[in-house]
Amino acid sequence: MRKQYQPQTSEIRLSSVLHALSDPRRLQIVLSLKDEAEESCTIYHDLMPKSTLTHHLKVLREAGVAKVRIEGTQHFYSLRTDDLELLFPGLMTSVLNVKPELIE
Amino acid sequence: MRKQYQPQTSEIRLSSVLHALSDPRRLQIVLSLKDEAEESCTIYHDLMPKSTLTHHLKVLREAGVAKVRIEGTQHFYSLRTDDLELLFPGLMTSVLNVKPELIE
Repeated sequence: MRKQYQPQTSEIRLSSVLHALSDPRRLQIVLSLKDEAEESCTIYHDLMPKSTLTHHLKVLREAGVAKVRIEGTQHFYSLRTDDLELLFPGLMTSVLNVKPELIE
Repeated sequence: MRKQYQPQTSEIRLSSVLHALSDPRRLQIVLSLKDEAEESCTIYHDLMPKSTLTHHLKVLREAGVAKVRIEGTQHFYSLRTDDLELLFPGLMTSVLNVKPELIE
C-alpha cells in the first residue's frame, strides 16, 4: 500500500495545525483520540460518511496533527502530541481540554 | 456609525477562534496586537490592501479574537485576551509565543 504523506516534525506549521483543528468534525476526531494510544479509523464510520471521514483524516495527517500506521488493510490513527508540544507548547493541552459546549 | 458585531464572551466558540487564527495574515495582525493595549487599524495599511485588511479584521472581530473601539472615523483594535483565557486557558499564550518561522 502506498505510504501516505505525513510531514516531518520540522515541516509542521501553526497555520495548518489551526486550520486542521478549526473544523468541529475534525476536532471531534481529535478529542476521541486524546485518551488512546492509537485507534482504528473504523470507529468513526458511525459518526460521518466514509468519504467525509477520509477527507478529515487526510487534513489532520497532512497538517501533522495525527499520524497513521497501516497494518494490512487497517489504518490506525494517533495524535502527534509530542511533536506538537515541542513546536507549540501548551496548544494541544488547551484544545483537548475544551468544554464540549464551547466547540461550535 | 453603525455598531459592528462582536460576540458576547459566552458566544465565542473554539472552532471560530481557531479558524480566525489559522490564516497567516490574520495571525500577523494578532501578533502585532499582542504587546499593545490597542492599535489603530491604519498601521496595517502597509501590510496588505485595505479591502483585504477589512476582511481579516472582520473575521477576527466576529470570532471574538479582537474587538474594536470606534472613535470618530478611527478604528482601534485590541485582543480579547481575558475572554479567550477564560474560555480556552493557555490557547492564546501558546499561539502568541509561536516562533515566526513556524507560522507557515
